[in-house]
Amino acid sequence: PTNSREIAGAGTALPSWNEGSTKQAILDFVEDVTNPQSANYIEPKDRIATFDNDGTLWSEQPVYFQFFFAIDRIKAMATDHPEWKDQQPYKAILENDMPALMEQGMAGLLKVVMTTHAGMTTDEFEKIVSDWVATAKHPTKNRPYTDLIYQPMLELVKYLQQNDFKVFIVSGGGIDFMRPWAEDVYGIPKDRIVGSSIKTEYDYNDGQPIIKRLPEIDLIDDKEGKPIGIHRYIGRKPVFAAGNSDGDLQMLRWTAANSAKSFKLFVHHTDEAREWAYDRDSHIGAFDKGWDEAKEKGWTLVDMKEDWKVIYPYELDSVD
Amino acid sequence: PTNSREIAGAGTALPSWNEGSTKQAILDFVEDVTNPQSANYIEPKDRIATFDNDGTLWSEQPVYFQFFFAIDRIKAMATDHPEWKDQQPYKAILENDMPALMEQGMAGLLKVVMTTHAGMTTDEFEKIVSDWVATAKHPTKNRPYTDLIYQPMLELVKYLQQNDFKVFIVSGGGIDFMRPWAEDVYGIPKDRIVGSSIKTEYDYNDGQPIIKRLPEIDLIDDKEGKPIGIHRYIGRKPVFAAGNSDGDLQMLRWTAANSAKSFKLFVHHTDEAREWAYDRDSHIGAFDKGWDEAKEKGWTLVDMKEDWKVIYPYELDSVD
Ligand SMILES: [Ca+2]
Ligand SMILES: [Ca+2]
Repeated sequence: PTNSREIAGAGTALPSWNEGSTKQAILDFVEDVTNPQSANYIEPKDRIATFDNDGTLWSEQPVYFQFFFAIDRIKAMATDHPEWKDQQPYKAILENDMPALMEQGMAGLLKVVMTTHAGMTTDEFEKIVSDWVATAKHPTKNRPYTDLIYQPMLELVKYLQQNDFKVFIVSGGGIDFMRPWAEDVYGIPKDRIVGSSIKTEYDYNDGQPIIKRLPEIDLIDDKEGKPIGIHRYIGRKPVFAAGNSDGDLQMLRWTAANSAKSFKLFVHHTDEAREWAYDRDSHIGAFDKGWDEAKEKGWTLVDMKEDWKVIYPYELDSVD
Repeated sequence: PTNSREIAGAGTALPSWNEGSTKQAILDFVEDVTNPQSANYIEPKDRIATFDNDGTLWSEQPVYFQFFFAIDRIKAMATDHPEWKDQQPYKAILENDMPALMEQGMAGLLKVVMTTHAGMTTDEFEKIVSDWVATAKHPTKNRPYTDLIYQPMLELVKYLQQNDFKVFIVSGGGIDFMRPWAEDVYGIPKDRIVGSSIKTEYDYNDGQPIIKRLPEIDLIDDKEGKPIGIHRYIGRKPVFAAGNSDGDLQMLRWTAANSAKSFKLFVHHTDEAREWAYDRDSHIGAFDKGWDEAKEKGWTLVDMKEDWKVIYPYELDSVD
């Protein structure tokens, strides 16, 4: 702290971040824009922070966790669909034949998404996701997916919230896939979760109102869709944005276009031992143009290996 | 209060509401669901309240105020469109010929809406609305439109917020028409304003990112669209909902479908002297099926004439 003003959480903030320029840049920014005496002061109502989810708040390897959800759902639903054993893309999934699944291309993947994410009510889907999150385990980490969240990012979310930032998730993942668990896991309320969505239909249903999930895309909240999602759901430009891939570049540019001082952050996956290491050529979370632009514009790059004491909350026990 | 627990604002809450069964029903509900000892206790995260805007938070006669905005915009834009003096629906507007405008039907109205609400950036539209709200006056009340908000409903919004309800606007009006002023006027943040929307497009625009407003409907947040908007933006069913017309019936039914205790309220326009009196046959804000269902199901009917000491904030000076 550069003055004696009380910063919420300062001193104890970001304990899982190593001391260094990355942590200091975050602390300095929050110090500056929350200081009423600063020329860069930002009123609380304008303190909007947006976080990508996959690869920014939790892991995303070997593939997006929502993909594992879809695979598990196809297998669970297959008992009611004996015909799937001879039909693509279901056959490939039931035979655990990922190359054959990939051969089905985008059309095949979209079919899997719609089969598993549409055709039920919103209440039913919420329960399906909640049940899956409570029981499913990551194939190599062998832990619940919600164990694979980033402890340092949790601390960053909390630190911003303590300083009167409104923290939103803005993810390419499904809004209704995240809502059932993200509120408890991240401390980010349901109404501050923005994601990709499908269309819905209201039905009075003989006095029992329901909302049905339709197999039709509404918003793809990725790349150009992120500023659009931010405008749709939040209505003002962020002053803080965090992502990890080229899919976040437009969100960070939109944030940089704010007339107020802003903070742009990319998480760079550099830790092969504790998490995964990937960037420019990755099939998931490719970080290429975003990396170049971050270096050119002086945005903050988080080096997971260097900047983070631990990756996951369950590692905290082993740290003094 | 039925016990000695401290209710935020109790005793001083709702000062512009006359004592009686309506006010008491509101106080009793909030008392009950915020009492941790009550079987009906609702956790703060589930305390979602949704308010219609036109006719529920501010007046809507002789027509929706957003319609006056569109008319004023056509007249302001006409200097750049000399051809409009011979083209419908513009000709009718420029000649103040409302019957001729109505003859253009829905297609004509949609043209007026798209001409005035699309074709500019989101930043530009925000400024246009802000400028209009700051200068335009209601044709008969001769006051800024934002003077014509309901003091008792402002108090209700504040009372719910003080008791940890998240209060949202869920309006058939335009989301981007409301956001520039509703935050300050109602104390409801931009990200808790849900309304009808048009599609948008992100453009990097040579390093200056913009979002363009396109002449295409996205969501009509009215009737069946209200539960859909609530699901899209909030992600959980309300426990408190307030409306004034049949356009709110689906929202109130969706609220009634909450497994938690819920409160459903209709504002009934009964005060011809201080505001307007209208219901079943009104061309704006028709209240017919909603009225019947409210009576059948015991929902709360606010009688503006009987229940409210004042209608508008500017009348407070004349009340002791
Ligand atoms: Ca990502
Ligand atoms: Ca209304």
